[in-house]
Amino acid sequence: MEKTFYFTGGKTPPETFPTDALALISQKAIKKIGGAFAFYPRQHEYSSYSDLGYKGLREVVSLRYKRREGVALPIDNIVVTSGSMQAIELVGRALLKPGDIIITEELTYYGSLEFFRYLKLNVIGIPVDDKRGMEIDILEDTLKCFDRLNLKPKIIYTIPNHHNPTGAIMTEKRRKRLLDLAYSYNIPIFEDDCYGDIDFYKDRKPRSINTLDDEGNVLFVGSFSKILGPGIRLGYLYAKDNYLNTILSHRWDLGTSVLASIIVAEYLKEKMWDHLEKHIKVIKRKMDITLKALGEYAGEYTKCTPPRGGLFIWVKITQNIDMEKLSLYAERRNVKYDEGKLFHYRERELKALRLSYAHIPDEEIPIGIKRLSEAIREAII
Amino acid sequence: MEKTFYFTGGKTPPETFPTDALALISQKAIKKIGGAFAFYPRQHEYSSYSDLGYKGLREVVSLRYKRREGVALPIDNIVVTSGSMQAIELVGRALLKPGDIIITEELTYYGSLEFFRYLKLNVIGIPVDDKRGMEIDILEDTLKCFDRLNLKPKIIYTIPNHHNPTGAIMTEKRRKRLLDLAYSYNIPIFEDDCYGDIDFYKDRKPRSINTLDDEGNVLFVGSFSKILGPGIRLGYLYAKDNYLNTILSHRWDLGTSVLASIIVAEYLKEKMWDHLEKHIKVIKRKMDITLKALGEYAGEYTKCTPPRGGLFIWVKITQNIDMEKLSLYAERRNVKYDEGKLFHYRERELKALRLSYAHIPDEEIPIGIKRLSEAIREAII
Repeated sequence: MEKTFYFTGGKTPPETFPTDALALISQKAIKKIGGAFAFYPRQHEYSSYSDLGYKGLREVVSLRYKRREGVALPIDNIVVTSGSMQAIELVGRALLKPGDIIITEELTYYGSLEFFRYLKLNVIGIPVDDKRGMEIDILEDTLKCFDRLNLKPKIIYTIPNHHNPTGAIMTEKRRKRLLDLAYSYNIPIFEDDCYGDIDFYKDRKPRSINTLDDEGNVLFVGSFSKILGPGIRLGYLYAKDNYLNTILSHRWDLGTSVLASIIVAEYLKEKMWDHLEKHIKVIKRKMDITLKALGEYAGEYTKCTPPRGGLFIWVKITQNIDMEKLSLYAERRNVKYDEGKLFHYRERELKALRLSYAHIPDEEIPIGIKRLSEAIREAII
Repeated sequence: MEKTFYFTGGKTPPETFPTDALALISQKAIKKIGGAFAFYPRQHEYSSYSDLGYKGLREVVSLRYKRREGVALPIDNIVVTSGSMQAIELVGRALLKPGDIIITEELTYYGSLEFFRYLKLNVIGIPVDDKRGMEIDILEDTLKCFDRLNLKPKIIYTIPNHHNPTGAIMTEKRRKRLLDLAYSYNIPIFEDDCYGDIDFYKDRKPRSINTLDDEGNVLFVGSFSKILGPGIRLGYLYAKDNYLNTILSHRWDLGTSVLASIIVAEYLKEKMWDHLEKHIKVIKRKMDITLKALGEYAGEYTKCTPPRGGLFIWVKITQNIDMEKLSLYAERRNVKYDEGKLFHYRERELKALRLSYAHIPDEEIPIGIKRLSEAIREAII
């Protein structure tokens, strides 16, 4: 069977996965606690709080935050989860019920959208600028509108850094306005910083909304899956006391594996920043290859804003195109991509698609992009 | 602060946790898949089905079943979960809704009961014989009664092996009758075999209900946490095709950690049976110490059926006693136990308590039991 090119999903470069270092440290990590694996993650010194998870990994979360944001997160408000998606699940189950209104970016992560639909929420999307993030003027109008109708959105969900799928970074000004609006209307913000670590440039991003918040109004989600690899399934949630107990009361798995947690914690507490540097370099290189190939093969009929980080390129098609045919033609050429409409809060058909490139070998990227470009050309009306 | 004796929870002996062997194999395990950690558990050869989890661990589940039951489980119907509790969560979320009737043993695992209450189920308990398990005559009457009222229980949840808390093993005859009743009334059985591996005696237990079933009517849950230690958080669910998709559609964590899974799989595929032999020997020894101490210090006013496996002793108090005072007096002596009423489907106050002993150092058991016995004596009316 011929090779298929999967420009799909949120995967990381297999070649940067620190196999040898992690293998080496796993011995030390397992010996470090040994018989304590006979206890649940919630018990004894391995957690100071029911179901929060292995303390050493929460310390890594706290230190990562301190290095990036200038302040440490209190480790007893950090919950280790099975990927950032379980953090989203817990917040959703705890704070939202069928019919509740949730505000998101108009385009956002399809996994979150699927889950919000599963919860039977009323999802309202706010347009997002490819560079500056959520359009706060429109958010303000929307909130006024809800208020006039005596309706109250329960939460505002946002991916401010390396927004999925557009790559936008919400400006600091917009973050502050978002916070002010959230305060006025008394709506918590749910900040998904899943891609926050994958910065291509060293210039400082705006501080996280959680850092800018001084009223305890933000729930913050992050991930180790994007730093190491999704197969490790480790993420985290930061929530202040007023939310923490409620959220944990919806958790039924008795905590995240201490085995996975301690290995990753022991590795990251020493190597996180060195690893990230190499990791990001490889991702950036692959993005450059992808953008170059796109320019070369599809430059005439596509447009994309080069992302400043993350794992995706959002490709807009500038001519009239039949997106269903594109899907068919790409499939015939063994190329997969994530369709634009997957990311739209109402699944509207868009002349756009998302490419994931970080997991694809360098030399295969141009071949896949060439095929995709041919499919696009063929589908143009 | 003085030492506290925790005769609580479902913990395993720290001294049998295979620290060195697991540490050694973890290197090999991580190197085995290396860069494939960049993918989700659902992807590529590491799973043939969305979210089932790491295939190597599902193979271990299948082989374990074959050795015990004579038949292998199809690996594409096995779901790796974060402990057996997540398996229970998934089944509950997928198949049960508020107000639904669930039948359980009258006494059962408090974690399951708590979750069933969280789901707002209507839990109906069937008395359980300390040796032979669920009283099937009473089940039959109960089912007739429901039928007369045009009510249909949605599921029958049972722990047939080393029942928690009583230690009962449901007889084969009862298992078959249970199945027949379930067929007649068209109710699926949810078999929790969490303790199924911890047998003190080599004589054969009855085959599992799942093995006896030939109509695809049983959901089967097992655990590696009781074989190794709860800190690893690995369990599994076996469900036939008719249930599998529905159940997986309620899973939002994108699968269980491949990191924890592959280490445990590589260890167990070679060492499971040797490890279990040593593990069980230590647990049995601790049970003997506990029973002896109970006989010595509290023989006059307690009674227990020596369990044939599992991690618990169910202690009935044969005299009139004030259970609230017992709790207080035990606390004063720094002894903790799990109160009988925790296990009752209606939280009825019982003159009974459950002791967990497997995680306690041998020499501490008699000291703790002596203190508990003094508390019991003091609380007798």
